[in-house]
Amino acid sequence: MIDIPDIPPLDAALGARLRAVIDGLAKPPGALGRIEDIAVRIGAIQGVMTPRAARALLMVFAGDHGLTAEGVSRYPAEVTAAMVETFLAGRASANAFARAVNAEMRVIDAGIARACPPSPNFVDVAVRRGTGNALHEPALSAAETDVALRRGIALAEGAAAEGFDILAMGEMGIGNTAAAALIMHALTGIPLDQCVGRGAGQDDAGLARKLSVLTRAARRAARRAAPKDPLAVLAEFGGGEIAMMTGAILGAAAARRIVLIDGFISSAAALAASRLAPACLDYCFYAHRSDESGHGRMLQAMNAEPLLDLGLRLGEGTGALLAVPMVRAAARLFTDVASLADVLGAAHDA
Amino acid sequence: MIDIPDIPPLDAALGARLRAVIDGLAKPPGALGRIEDIAVRIGAIQGVMTPRAARALLMVFAGDHGLTAEGVSRYPAEVTAAMVETFLAGRASANAFARAVNAEMRVIDAGIARACPPSPNFVDVAVRRGTGNALHEPALSAAETDVALRRGIALAEGAAAEGFDILAMGEMGIGNTAAAALIMHALTGIPLDQCVGRGAGQDDAGLARKLSVLTRAARRAARRAAPKDPLAVLAEFGGGEIAMMTGAILGAAAARRIVLIDGFISSAAALAASRLAPACLDYCFYAHRSDESGHGRMLQAMNAEPLLDLGLRLGEGTGALLAVPMVRAAARLFTDVASLADVLGAAHDA
Repeated sequence: MIDIPDIPPLDAALGARLRAVIDGLAKPPGALGRIEDIAVRIGAIQGVMTPRAARALLMVFAGDHGLTAEGVSRYPAEVTAAMVETFLAGRASANAFARAVNAEMRVIDAGIARACPPSPNFVDVAVRRGTGNALHEPALSAAETDVALRRGIALAEGAAAEGFDILAMGEMGIGNTAAAALIMHALTGIPLDQCVGRGAGQDDAGLARKLSVLTRAARRAARRAAPKDPLAVLAEFGGGEIAMMTGAILGAAAARRIVLIDGFISSAAALAASRLAPACLDYCFYAHRSDESGHGRMLQAMNAEPLLDLGLRLGEGTGALLAVPMVRAAARLFTDVASLADVLGAAHDA
Repeated sequence: MIDIPDIPPLDAALGARLRAVIDGLAKPPGALGRIEDIAVRIGAIQGVMTPRAARALLMVFAGDHGLTAEGVSRYPAEVTAAMVETFLAGRASANAFARAVNAEMRVIDAGIARACPPSPNFVDVAVRRGTGNALHEPALSAAETDVALRRGIALAEGAAAEGFDILAMGEMGIGNTAAAALIMHALTGIPLDQCVGRGAGQDDAGLARKLSVLTRAARRAARRAAPKDPLAVLAEFGGGEIAMMTGAILGAAAARRIVLIDGFISSAAALAASRLAPACLDYCFYAHRSDESGHGRMLQAMNAEPLLDLGLRLGEGTGALLAVPMVRAAARLFTDVASLADVLGAAHDA
């Protein structure tokens, strides 16, 4: 059984002192709205009065899903590896966005069906190639789930030790909206038809097929596992990338780093992480409300208010990257901005 | 009478070709939501298939308002000049945000009540010091309004010639939510009480006083000017910074640059600009929905859907700066991202 790392709760007294600083800056109190809330929280996350939000790393966890054999996705499973090679060639949307916001990017093989060639920004820590078909069997064994979580924790701790201030969570995995919907349903009890969406673009017939497959997969798993046990749920539905991202969220929080959650898949990982260590959510910002239909409902269940609402539904961490500059702007309030007393004093002297 | 520069309408055929490129990228069609719409529009704005959105300039137009003598603002008028000096010292929120998103910043004296000392990023093109008190007289003469617009056009054209791809509109001026509310009311006919808000933080009594003053100012002006003439409206209510920003929006559009509109004040300038040259709005993106109460209603009247909704109400261009990375991310889709055909071909070959 995995040791969940110790995650310090945020210090409310420190939060109040941070808020007082923000309120005293050269602007009307509250005039920067949610950016002020971000500022206070990242100070509390880092446990300092002058938080840093300079270096950002997008971690793209990639994995395949045995359930794709049932036609739950519009695209064939081979697209996962092909997109990973596109990331490594620097030619995916996430690469473009990472350049636009000056973030670094790393791709993690958490269980792609075929091995991809070595590359400087590619970390192969796959627990297995692909997963079992969750319609018929658990996606991952308990041991594989455990290893995936441990490796995710270690990756986040390593990135923290390298000096990254912001860890943005991204993913690539054909079939992973299906897995995320099953996890959401199992952990929240929200009816499956409110968890399932069109993923990469299923038409009405595809959506109906997906719901039918997932209904049967959920029923199979419910006969085996205690439905609310997050480790069992991750094992039943996978995939490696969601389990490893769950670990990364825990590891990042334990290392007091700012965590940016992207869309539906990474929110499912945050949900699973929160059932293992509720305090981890204090370290997470929800970058955006995805257009994937279950995401709004999942955010609601987690009492989460996303920062952006731009109709994104790509994944890869694209939404999380767009939130990076907001966090950087928030952090700079503490270091770059004069106090109102200074400015009003100057106005009085003039 | 001012010559409004020629603003080319966007080429719909080019827009369709840009959309086809975006639809063919290595992602599900439409999966980047509004970022895709931004991408298509900035291509059409620049009239090219590979738009550039690298260099961004925030122009902060600063001016004072004679109407502040009536107690329409929570802060004394002297704060305008004090905040301008804070900008020039690099210590305002807008400076912090500009650093966070890697944008340059310039402050334009469009009519501050007292002259501020020279500084490298300060452009003194004031048409007068302060404005008339719009409760009793026009804020600006027709000639002053004309000069302010011309100077705004020239500043934007100059910034375009320097190679800025993105021109973000910001402002500083104690009392300018009052002026913007009067402009909104005059140009749209929306009842004044739906245009007036708390500005920098009026309490209930202050808000009631502000509405009373503005009601009388609007009545005075309506006896003089054709209420729908944008030049007359800008003259009646000012200030220099709103008139000059109106010119800058026209000049930026004429130079085919991407224009980022910030909050309530810069939206009022965009509204005035649109009454002089409707095509200019095709070049404008509304960065955010301000917490200033009239802004949502003004955006609705302009059929504008803002990109962000973060409860900001500071001005200075802070909201516009937060939209800069989104525009940069959108532009990179054309240059950085592989086609879906390439990726599926690779998946097939593997």
